[in-house]
Amino acid sequence: MKNALYLQSGGPTAVINSSLYGVIKAYVNNTDKIGHLYGSLYGIEGVLKDNLVEIEPDLSKYDELKYMSGAILGSARLKLGLPEDDDRYVKIHEIAKKYDIGYILVNGGNDSMDTANKLNKFFAELKEDIVVMGIPKTIDNDLILTDHTPGFGSAVKFVTKSIMEIGLDINSYRKGRATIVEIMGRDAGWLAGATALGKLYNLGPDLIYLPEIPFDRKKFLDDVERVFKEKGHVLICASEALKDTNGEYVSVEDKLDSFGHKQLGSVSKYLEILINSILNINTRTIELSLLQRAGAHLASKIDRQEAIDVGEKALEYALQKRVGMVSIIRDSNNPYHSHYDLVPLASVANAVKTMPLEYVNKSGNGMTQEFIEYVYPFIDGDDIGIHSSDIFLSQDKYAKVNK
Amino acid sequence: MKNALYLQSGGPTAVINSSLYGVIKAYVNNTDKIGHLYGSLYGIEGVLKDNLVEIEPDLSKYDELKYMSGAILGSARLKLGLPEDDDRYVKIHEIAKKYDIGYILVNGGNDSMDTANKLNKFFAELKEDIVVMGIPKTIDNDLILTDHTPGFGSAVKFVTKSIMEIGLDINSYRKGRATIVEIMGRDAGWLAGATALGKLYNLGPDLIYLPEIPFDRKKFLDDVERVFKEKGHVLICASEALKDTNGEYVSVEDKLDSFGHKQLGSVSKYLEILINSILNINTRTIELSLLQRAGAHLASKIDRQEAIDVGEKALEYALQKRVGMVSIIRDSNNPYHSHYDLVPLASVANAVKTMPLEYVNKSGNGMTQEFIEYVYPFIDGDDIGIHSSDIFLSQDKYAKVNK
Repeated sequence: MKNALYLQSGGPTAVINSSLYGVIKAYVNNTDKIGHLYGSLYGIEGVLKDNLVEIEPDLSKYDELKYMSGAILGSARLKLGLPEDDDRYVKIHEIAKKYDIGYILVNGGNDSMDTANKLNKFFAELKEDIVVMGIPKTIDNDLILTDHTPGFGSAVKFVTKSIMEIGLDINSYRKGRATIVEIMGRDAGWLAGATALGKLYNLGPDLIYLPEIPFDRKKFLDDVERVFKEKGHVLICASEALKDTNGEYVSVEDKLDSFGHKQLGSVSKYLEILINSILNINTRTIELSLLQRAGAHLASKIDRQEAIDVGEKALEYALQKRVGMVSIIRDSNNPYHSHYDLVPLASVANAVKTMPLEYVNKSGNGMTQEFIEYVYPFIDGDDIGIHSSDIFLSQDKYAKVNK
Repeated sequence: MKNALYLQSGGPTAVINSSLYGVIKAYVNNTDKIGHLYGSLYGIEGVLKDNLVEIEPDLSKYDELKYMSGAILGSARLKLGLPEDDDRYVKIHEIAKKYDIGYILVNGGNDSMDTANKLNKFFAELKEDIVVMGIPKTIDNDLILTDHTPGFGSAVKFVTKSIMEIGLDINSYRKGRATIVEIMGRDAGWLAGATALGKLYNLGPDLIYLPEIPFDRKKFLDDVERVFKEKGHVLICASEALKDTNGEYVSVEDKLDSFGHKQLGSVSKYLEILINSILNINTRTIELSLLQRAGAHLASKIDRQEAIDVGEKALEYALQKRVGMVSIIRDSNNPYHSHYDLVPLASVANAVKTMPLEYVNKSGNGMTQEFIEYVYPFIDGDDIGIHSSDIFLSQDKYAKVNK
């Protein structure tokens, strides 16, 4: 019997450990076909340094994985070159032989799928009986050939809840500020867009800016000024990766005098200075930072289950000697239902799924109903728990008068 | 029958609306003694502008208040001067007469207690039959004569959970960065200190810095360097209000060139630049900002119940013509039990409760067991849900070697 090797790659999500749980589940169900299940510590590093741990065929020992953020085995960025240029193939091959590995499962984003693809070719040329499977994972939701990626749904729920609670705080004052919340998403605005879900509860951001829509400074300032005049405060969600009409990232280079140290400012810092200096509106910046990918306590139930499923499916497909990335196909929204399939690693590896423009409103500062329907299932319906936020303030007779 | 008036003041907490719920509860139980219950919109502004809402004697309509962050009636900072210098007394008196108010309940921090105290004296001199009660509220936990303040416990739970999830993310990489998390607390380090709870799960901050301990730049850099060398990453929690040995706030003035706009940097930004430039360690800053006072989805069960109770007690005391601030007295930790009492408004108004030095460790960069026991009840025991975070990485044979 061959053994299996699992490794985590890239940035953690709230549910990457749920995928590991799913792999263990498949292992436990197939101990007649798989000898041992190994985990590589710190991603590919564990393979290169022969630093593996053995995972026991006892699911009850690993229940916590479903509720734990971070990458429990440790992670590392992983992008292999071509076999002729990259010494690491030799070491990977050596370890695969030493541990009699027949199945390698790489849990990551598109770099990981690229690596899985290259390893499959490498082993095939050597006529080694080893298959390499991809398990998708990214809060950015930017992999093609899958309806969405495990990790995205939980990040959606976290940012939506956070935006709504920030909204309730902001609504507590008549005269407020501009508040900018910066949301992760290096190449695509899926997660920033998802904050629009708060609008279902009258607590969404007033304005949303995505990397898919070239940033127009004048239009941005007009938007902000208009909302601020109307409401006395404005809540803005901006993707960390806004680009201007030349395709350059929008950011500001801070020159910090105390130590003569320079560093690249964030998008939100740029927008803050813009609003502050041009519109003279007091502005606050909130960067959700690691929290949005680490918020396992707010993990989406659908996302967690799918993360488990793709891990389980990956090992099952591998046992059938099939290779590819496990992909999620959505069947229906209400009730939500999905199933799984295999898609070619090579296709996923070299593409980024950006937001279709029909998901963005005509003003380029908010989302369409179609997009809301796409992300709504991930917040687990009423579970979000904030409903009629305006039970008192809707009676405010000065709300309109005191503009 | 006299009527009652309730108003919210200062920064929101996750449970200030729970205190309103408690007030409504007492109202519903005493409709034979109280005519109407009014809420003032946007704190004192609603009184000054005759902008009140009537709250119905039907508790079932307001259940959501227990789960909703923000100040649902709207808030405003409130600090009255002396009656002879401050026109607002006249208007407050006029509104109190117009609505036949016998009981005023002010839900806020020490400025609100000062105001409640002044109003009591003012009404007493006029021989008006009006009592003004204080309902405590602040995430800063800096009011005296109460074991702790409603709002603090929920903020403790939020920051602890956040720090632990950030910790799990950081642990995912062998070679990491310095991560600085800035925690609210304008005059006292209670909340920043509470992040030490994460250590119970092996996920706390490595270093904690509080305003009560004068900031020593050299010692700070030594601490950071030592931990970083040992672990490959370092997690630092810093109070927003760190002060140097001269009692000056520690911060950096950013000079931002793009718009020639200047603004005061945060403590975390200061520490980031310090670590970056002196130790040459890649550094990330996370400001929890409004989230730490708005995280009602992680509200502490004990805190929520106590917030309800102090609201309820306040109206009950008022009906007995007793005045003061409702205070919480802790009876025991395990099981947790507390009861309530009245304390003089004047005493609370003019004092700040900073952290006793016996709660801080000898190195001034962490907390003692005694403090952990003080804050532990607020995280609702095992509810926090992260346990053996090192199930795999504890087997890492390179952990010590690769220093």
